[in-house]
Amino acid sequence: MGQQGRHVTGASPQGQTTAHSCSREPGCAILGIMKKPAPKNAFYAQSGGVSAVINASACGVIETAKRHQKHIGKLFAGRDGIVGALTEDLIDVSRESPATIRGLKHTPAGAFGSARFKLKGIEQNRAEYERLIDVFRAHDIGYFFYNGGNDSMDTALKVSQIGQALGYPITCVGVPKTVDNDLPHTDCCPGFGSVAKYVAVSTLEAGLDVASMARTSTKVFVLEVMGRHAGWIAAAGGLAGAKPAQPPHIILFPEIPFVPQEFLDRVKQCVSDFGYCVVVVSEGSAFADGKFVADAGTKDAFGHTQLGGVAPVIANMIRDAHGYKYHWAVADYLQRAARHVASRVDVEQAYAVGKAAVELAVQGMNAVMPTIVRRSSRPYRWTIGHVPLAQVANLEKKLPRFFITADGFGITAACRRYLEPLIGGEAPPPYRNGLPEYVRIKGVAVRRKLTAEFKV
Amino acid sequence: MGQQGRHVTGASPQGQTTAHSCSREPGCAILGIMKKPAPKNAFYAQSGGVSAVINASACGVIETAKRHQKHIGKLFAGRDGIVGALTEDLIDVSRESPATIRGLKHTPAGAFGSARFKLKGIEQNRAEYERLIDVFRAHDIGYFFYNGGNDSMDTALKVSQIGQALGYPITCVGVPKTVDNDLPHTDCCPGFGSVAKYVAVSTLEAGLDVASMARTSTKVFVLEVMGRHAGWIAAAGGLAGAKPAQPPHIILFPEIPFVPQEFLDRVKQCVSDFGYCVVVVSEGSAFADGKFVADAGTKDAFGHTQLGGVAPVIANMIRDAHGYKYHWAVADYLQRAARHVASRVDVEQAYAVGKAAVELAVQGMNAVMPTIVRRSSRPYRWTIGHVPLAQVANLEKKLPRFFITADGFGITAACRRYLEPLIGGEAPPPYRNGLPEYVRIKGVAVRRKLTAEFKV
Repeated sequence: MGQQGRHVTGASPQGQTTAHSCSREPGCAILGIMKKPAPKNAFYAQSGGVSAVINASACGVIETAKRHQKHIGKLFAGRDGIVGALTEDLIDVSRESPATIRGLKHTPAGAFGSARFKLKGIEQNRAEYERLIDVFRAHDIGYFFYNGGNDSMDTALKVSQIGQALGYPITCVGVPKTVDNDLPHTDCCPGFGSVAKYVAVSTLEAGLDVASMARTSTKVFVLEVMGRHAGWIAAAGGLAGAKPAQPPHIILFPEIPFVPQEFLDRVKQCVSDFGYCVVVVSEGSAFADGKFVADAGTKDAFGHTQLGGVAPVIANMIRDAHGYKYHWAVADYLQRAARHVASRVDVEQAYAVGKAAVELAVQGMNAVMPTIVRRSSRPYRWTIGHVPLAQVANLEKKLPRFFITADGFGITAACRRYLEPLIGGEAPPPYRNGLPEYVRIKGVAVRRKLTAEFKV
Repeated sequence: MGQQGRHVTGASPQGQTTAHSCSREPGCAILGIMKKPAPKNAFYAQSGGVSAVINASACGVIETAKRHQKHIGKLFAGRDGIVGALTEDLIDVSRESPATIRGLKHTPAGAFGSARFKLKGIEQNRAEYERLIDVFRAHDIGYFFYNGGNDSMDTALKVSQIGQALGYPITCVGVPKTVDNDLPHTDCCPGFGSVAKYVAVSTLEAGLDVASMARTSTKVFVLEVMGRHAGWIAAAGGLAGAKPAQPPHIILFPEIPFVPQEFLDRVKQCVSDFGYCVVVVSEGSAFADGKFVADAGTKDAFGHTQLGGVAPVIANMIRDAHGYKYHWAVADYLQRAARHVASRVDVEQAYAVGKAAVELAVQGMNAVMPTIVRRSSRPYRWTIGHVPLAQVANLEKKLPRFFITADGFGITAACRRYLEPLIGGEAPPPYRNGLPEYVRIKGVAVRRKLTAEFKV
């Protein structure tokens, strides 16, 4: 991208013009006699665990950036997230067809690659931050859009700070994403609504299955869902049934200490009252001492503790205590990749936060994150707000106690009122030969400009 | 139901007229001068593991029976399958609204209740068969529609034989159903196409998830699917990718002995070639000596062998051998209950075999089962045929060797050509407040006529 024109105010030694310093002053008197500020390139990266709709946010960022060519030149995506920035492995998004970009809206997982890579504190590893700025400088990148959860918001904040400190100010805007729904200051997180819908639908369907066969077959069914620290996803299972007799009969939340005898008594009561019992258990379910229930379980043939799987541990407890025939399922990645049953609300919100991130950036906002603001639950109405990254970074929002019934095994009406709109509406992908037609990017790399290699 | 008229031929002491003996002779000379034969009631029951579309078969039976009132009077359904017949717990289907009956077409699991209850051989437990005939006689039931797999076809055949022997001939028609796709003489089994679609879609989606994060996170993903003796469901996972680089990279079939070192070598090769490895494993995967891989695994804290779960066993092997970060999922009931992602072809075939069963019965066919006959794969064309129950009962159709690649880890083009049409088309249920609107029957019981109780 050339440097055709430049706004004098705020120009750095490298010709850096923070676009926002211009748009903050729409009436700026000197604009009329100066050349327009040069647009800066933008960098977008996906971070952390992916979701059914993170690509919808990418689509929102990309399509909106294209409509702001006055401020944003080219858009580069990090191949495998921030790792792509550190290794100068940038994807030229302009080489993707508009159909592919549009298709991102119905394609799950991270089309550009995501990374579980948390930058250390600036004191511990200043080199990583300096490298980022070097790469951004080399590619004339003035905008950093980081699509992730709380860790990622922390990274985006630090990049904004270090850029400032290194004389290369960069506009950093977070794009919220997490199936765990644990970001503060936003009513919900894109990615959550779809996993919630998947879990609610699966609980409903498996519940019907078990109900129809309980008389002569399986009496207890256990479904393990994600959520290591917060019970939002497990709570969504509760949407499947509104009456005590309807599954799920028991939900185990990370927020409520697991007491085996209480649980086993309740299972027995359910089988006695309803003929069967459906349990939704969060992978983060833990005993009062904080130990995960999943770790209480099993050793393999060599005596090693087996990793993962609270469902089989719970199921075995039930077998040992009551002898009921049981089945269990672990949804694992299926739940967060299940774009085929995504919530339309979630898809729209994911797109909206991507779009808003770009709009905030070109309006000159820095170190912020767009949020979902709930205006009303019934009917559901929401708008986009924003919050400083500093308020989001590294914080976790747990399920509030009043969303959980007094006995600790179910969700309250308030929780239902909160959750229900988030799974609203369907947005099925197009299908071809019986399978969703998910898009794959070409992923053409931008020519490298730096000679130094960087190992991550 | 009254006994308004009777056809003299074939009339039993109880006034039994086998409807088919009449319709077999449409030109029967005496018909003109005789009263019409009285319609007989019909009994329908769901049997064995349920599926996403067994209720669509029920819908086909019910709606078609209604169109044949000349032959069929009332339709009763067994509550919890054949158990309902033995205990004289019959559901009066006429008390359900047409909307509910229509809704069965998009509702998974067994709306009337199914049962894992295999009648013993006539020699071992003649009392059960005699009881069935007593109940059928008491409720003037002349048609028996049994919706299940190979065991159930065997039962239907025996009922037909014992009815004959006890002087209460009854028209018995099987309605094929099994997610395992292992019934012989039918190109495919209703229930299979939808579970196949679920597994293919889930493999595709989870594969995208793993691909997008493999560089810094999970390298191996293992999805466990159903199919204890036949690998049809596992094979369906292969539809997710057509090229070696595309997931699933490895499928483990029950038909191919599991050799750990070969498998582990292949996993390593995949991670080296593609950066990650997605494995679809059948629950029935077994070693050369016939022992299930699932049983090779784990013991709980008390030293008991843990039941179920080949996925964690496989995943642990991979961790121990290569140290890769892994994830695993067990779809269990989610896969066979997943009406939300059912195959339209499967729904249509399920309805069609229900409809055909009734049509065969009123045409006077006895001890038969409708079959799906493939006329062409591309484009996919099928019709309904039928086969004597005696040819189906207790037989199992395994995945043929030429459907599995030479190395034993994938599916061939021939397999793909067979499977692809079966997952064709979508038939989403209606949704309300974000969830599928599945119907529930009222299940009004028919007044009991027998005084004797029967314990099952």
